[in-house]
Amino acid sequence: MPVVDVSILRQLSERALQVAGVPGEHARTQVDLLLEAELRGVPSHGLLRLERIVRRIENGVSDPHATGSHTWRGPAFLSVDGNRGLGPVVADRALEVLAGAATRNGVAVAAVSNSNHLGMLAWYTERLAGQGFTTIALSTSEALVHPWGARRAMIGTNPISIGVPTGGAPFVMDTATSVVSMGEIHDHAQRGASIPDHWALDAKGNPTTDAQAAKDGAIAPFGEAKGYALGLAFELLVSSLVGAAIGTEVRGTLDDTEVCNKGDLFILIKGPHRDLQAYLQEIRDMPPAQGFGEVLIPGERGRACRVERLKDGVPLPDALWDKLQVLAGTAAAA
Amino acid sequence: MPVVDVSILRQLSERALQVAGVPGEHARTQVDLLLEAELRGVPSHGLLRLERIVRRIENGVSDPHATGSHTWRGPAFLSVDGNRGLGPVVADRALEVLAGAATRNGVAVAAVSNSNHLGMLAWYTERLAGQGFTTIALSTSEALVHPWGARRAMIGTNPISIGVPTGGAPFVMDTATSVVSMGEIHDHAQRGASIPDHWALDAKGNPTTDAQAAKDGAIAPFGEAKGYALGLAFELLVSSLVGAAIGTEVRGTLDDTEVCNKGDLFILIKGPHRDLQAYLQEIRDMPPAQGFGEVLIPGERGRACRVERLKDGVPLPDALWDKLQVLAGTAAAA
Repeated sequence: MPVVDVSILRQLSERALQVAGVPGEHARTQVDLLLEAELRGVPSHGLLRLERIVRRIENGVSDPHATGSHTWRGPAFLSVDGNRGLGPVVADRALEVLAGAATRNGVAVAAVSNSNHLGMLAWYTERLAGQGFTTIALSTSEALVHPWGARRAMIGTNPISIGVPTGGAPFVMDTATSVVSMGEIHDHAQRGASIPDHWALDAKGNPTTDAQAAKDGAIAPFGEAKGYALGLAFELLVSSLVGAAIGTEVRGTLDDTEVCNKGDLFILIKGPHRDLQAYLQEIRDMPPAQGFGEVLIPGERGRACRVERLKDGVPLPDALWDKLQVLAGTAAAA
Repeated sequence: MPVVDVSILRQLSERALQVAGVPGEHARTQVDLLLEAELRGVPSHGLLRLERIVRRIENGVSDPHATGSHTWRGPAFLSVDGNRGLGPVVADRALEVLAGAATRNGVAVAAVSNSNHLGMLAWYTERLAGQGFTTIALSTSEALVHPWGARRAMIGTNPISIGVPTGGAPFVMDTATSVVSMGEIHDHAQRGASIPDHWALDAKGNPTTDAQAAKDGAIAPFGEAKGYALGLAFELLVSSLVGAAIGTEVRGTLDDTEVCNKGDLFILIKGPHRDLQAYLQEIRDMPPAQGFGEVLIPGERGRACRVERLKDGVPLPDALWDKLQVLAGTAAAA
């Protein structure tokens, strides 16, 4: 597996997007998001996504020039029509003005429709926490998760990220409401590995340890009935406030040909802070339970990985490294 | 176990609070909250709490007259000092003005400190959803939950409730971020029943099936590392915005003698809605998985229980029924 310097990855990826017609500034934003996922060890949200982004532009379901149209429904509620723009480009433009509204009002909400894949939510919430905003970010997705006690997928993997200023490095958690990502199931299938029996159902709605069978089935919500309740709440909340598609109607985050009709929601709060470092340190210093080497704070393993990969480079599967060079036009197409 | 008409329970409970010096209107609010929990089959948040409320008033750590002091930190950010008032009395007064701010601005936040136990969060979010608000309610508690991979409690049970208008009966989910409530562990201990081995650790931080041992230990977060990340995020978010105590500093929701220093946070959003009934019905109509009788929507089992108990009465343990009459002064103290 090649290990590539992040500056080379950045250059090639931006070049790949520019070849596809993405303006330079938009390419930088999109690539920065993907690279942050690679740096933090979340390859499912990394350069793997680049080809889909290019194909969606070629197919006209993504407009790389669009930055979104803004409608204020109140001094602190911004509705955004993404005009089929790139997820992070539309979101960044919205968050720029939303930060002003949250500062003036104490809180502000952006509800984003008609925009492409938002990517790793921590990319947004960490930056905003660094600027003094407590942020809740939600995004919906294609229905991949089954309601607790049901046999078919009906709910998105609906991630949540929460960023909180702490007086030091921001606290950032970011998790899907599925027990595992579909990417991880595909990875197991590709390697011929079996999966734990509580991860997924097969196409008939029965528990399976066969990753291949799980690909046509449904992923379990995390935390059984409680995680189901949360994932469903996010689906309803986002769909309702954004005016986005819901359940099995959602398209465009896993394919190259359909307009993306999921929704994104950001809640920015500019309130008082306190120093949370001592409390977080108390948790880090706790003696670990049997079977654990240390007690982790969410997001910090990724941050440590980032430091390492900035120094040593990012490991990429051969196929992805080859694809990247083809997309950037620095190698002949296969 | 006596089964008592809800109107009798209401009368006796309000009388008990009035005997303790609670003004009539405040007694009605506090009792309505407790009774709704009984009606929905959540006795841990029901009349069981009444004696503690009375003792806390007697001990001067709860002021039944207080309604809270309001400070607007922006047009949409309300800081509330509860002045040791009853949880639902302080929250109701805050939500009344917050609803106006959310309507004017699109969203508004209330951060409540120095107020007593908030009770079942669904009581608030369901009502607000009925008024057209999408609501996220959070509250912190004494540290009862261990960080994932740690041996001791360091995080509250930190419940979340989300209410969403649907075009029909509101969608309401309400869950603690612990895998189970401390009330349920106490209930198992009292009955001499064992608990599943993933619910709790003993005082030494080892997994236990002994409910008695778990009482002195720590409850697991729901959903392992993901639920830990959420519960911790809520602890940090609420403590930071409210200026409330954090971790093992939190007092006053499980004792009769300490000023309550946890925090409550409400985010009210007045945005566009869509009819979500068809989607929810599609979920209800799904064929259940093996081992399940039906696919449930969060909150609806409680709502069905409510209909039944309004008609047939509320079952109460003998000891609680006796205590209620003593507190109301309609029976001699034991």
